[in-house]
Amino acid sequence: MSILLAINGWDLRSWQERFQALLPDREVLLAASEIDASRVKYIACWKHTPGSLARYKDCQVLFSLGAGVDHLITDYDLPDAPIVRIVDPDLTGRMSEWVAWQCLDWLRQGKMYRQLQSEQRWFDDRHQPAAQDVRVGIMGLGELGMDAVERLRHLRFDVAGWSRTPKHIPHVRSYAGESELSAFLARTDILVVLLPLTSDTRGIINADLLRKLARDGRLCGPVLLNAGRGGLQVEIDILAALDTGQLKGASLDVFEQEPLVPTSALWTHKDVTITPHNSAMSHPDAIAQSIVSQIKDFEQGEPLKHVVMRDKGY
Amino acid sequence: MSILLAINGWDLRSWQERFQALLPDREVLLAASEIDASRVKYIACWKHTPGSLARYKDCQVLFSLGAGVDHLITDYDLPDAPIVRIVDPDLTGRMSEWVAWQCLDWLRQGKMYRQLQSEQRWFDDRHQPAAQDVRVGIMGLGELGMDAVERLRHLRFDVAGWSRTPKHIPHVRSYAGESELSAFLARTDILVVLLPLTSDTRGIINADLLRKLARDGRLCGPVLLNAGRGGLQVEIDILAALDTGQLKGASLDVFEQEPLVPTSALWTHKDVTITPHNSAMSHPDAIAQSIVSQIKDFEQGEPLKHVVMRDKGY
Repeated sequence: MSILLAINGWDLRSWQERFQALLPDREVLLAASEIDASRVKYIACWKHTPGSLARYKDCQVLFSLGAGVDHLITDYDLPDAPIVRIVDPDLTGRMSEWVAWQCLDWLRQGKMYRQLQSEQRWFDDRHQPAAQDVRVGIMGLGELGMDAVERLRHLRFDVAGWSRTPKHIPHVRSYAGESELSAFLARTDILVVLLPLTSDTRGIINADLLRKLARDGRLCGPVLLNAGRGGLQVEIDILAALDTGQLKGASLDVFEQEPLVPTSALWTHKDVTITPHNSAMSHPDAIAQSIVSQIKDFEQGEPLKHVVMRDKGY
Repeated sequence: MSILLAINGWDLRSWQERFQALLPDREVLLAASEIDASRVKYIACWKHTPGSLARYKDCQVLFSLGAGVDHLITDYDLPDAPIVRIVDPDLTGRMSEWVAWQCLDWLRQGKMYRQLQSEQRWFDDRHQPAAQDVRVGIMGLGELGMDAVERLRHLRFDVAGWSRTPKHIPHVRSYAGESELSAFLARTDILVVLLPLTSDTRGIINADLLRKLARDGRLCGPVLLNAGRGGLQVEIDILAALDTGQLKGASLDVFEQEPLVPTSALWTHKDVTITPHNSAMSHPDAIAQSIVSQIKDFEQGEPLKHVVMRDKGY
């Protein structure tokens, strides 16, 4: 009845202490070759070494420590157990904060006013559009996308959504599938990408997509926000679109390679805002708590929540 | 049945055209000594020359072209007519945009991340508080304050309000009067000032008030947002509080003297965000439309809305 932590890139010891405090009667093990695999009933993982989990054949549930599961889905050598995503209200709320923050920063011309302040210049632009004049398009209508839709609607943005399969959202126009993607993009001034990374979505933010964004909006050019996954975007295409003016600006929290390489032209581009993949960094305590409560429910015979569809990748 | 425009500092001609287009059958006059005062039934004004309106004794309604009416209230030589404020949903929405934008920018450490980007440094702070961990206090619960409360609640901030007289707001703790001001300030991490400027509120944002703000919050020091009126604040006290660390930061849209003087230390202070009194710049068309529809209702015998209480100043 042990829980195994298979984590790369994060502080292992603090995660072990966190789980041990919540599950004082269980063994909390760190992935290592000398572990008796048959004792491992649950695995909590983040960017584990591919192939390293195959030997835990008695594992009953694989938990991802983050909202994304691409690190698990792309490993074809996993125990035959359900994969459970983190759906944490805290994480969802933080993502919506980031999205609302960046939408407002573009709406209210943050870059321009910061520049004016640095020059000690007073310039009150009387042609400021209001939120309701700006069309935000949310790509991906899972937990994160739906929450962002709600927050932005309350800020009065003109919000629409796109997802692979049709979703009904009260008072919000939603588009679905490949066939409606162009129409969705054509009415989008601020594109917010909250898609999962799958074989279908890899590189979806490319020259072809950026070219289809609205050119007739009140922001005088479309803006891209990506807080999903770096693998969704083709950075060379984003830079090209910025330089031709096809894109007015971009706020990026995720990158093809992280940390963003020091030589990337994104760092210094005047129309790019960069945050270091922390748009929705949940508190580790909240994540551990969420997994432990899922384990307890599961052992009471409750069905698992937020199980990933392995074929779809989300 | 003429309408007179008494405006300083704005483009007179465009206001005249705007009103004339909406009221093609009326005279739209610009304030000047040769005008026959008895023809003037309505006055729309913004920062008129004090004393200059006294001679329009037949004026039936005085309209302010902005949300603030301190420019009228402080003129003791006005026609004896009701003063009507602009309450424009567009203006209210824009003010809430600015408030939400600045609250999120402080919550999400905008200044720090912009600095890190300029240094091409990747630093993912794992101790970011969430909106619900941050206590916002809205001072002034009129139209603007109440709307800001709603927007910030939807972004999950922990919101409370303070007003001179008790207000009941569902699900929001509200404080009232002088006696509860200290308690309100003691639980406030981000103070949002949306008060009218009256003889009671002039200079209210001073050393004494700033000293009472919460010191135990998740932002590691309180933040001031003033989008009300410049006369509410004592800038020398704000600068002193920033320099002693009593205040962590400030976002100011209004100033004691506008445009903000080039020599003000606020311009270059690293913990100050400045916008040029445009937090809630309503579109002039929306303002004119709102006044014209009030005139039409008034002439149908409807009561005037948003009449200012001259004794209170709002």
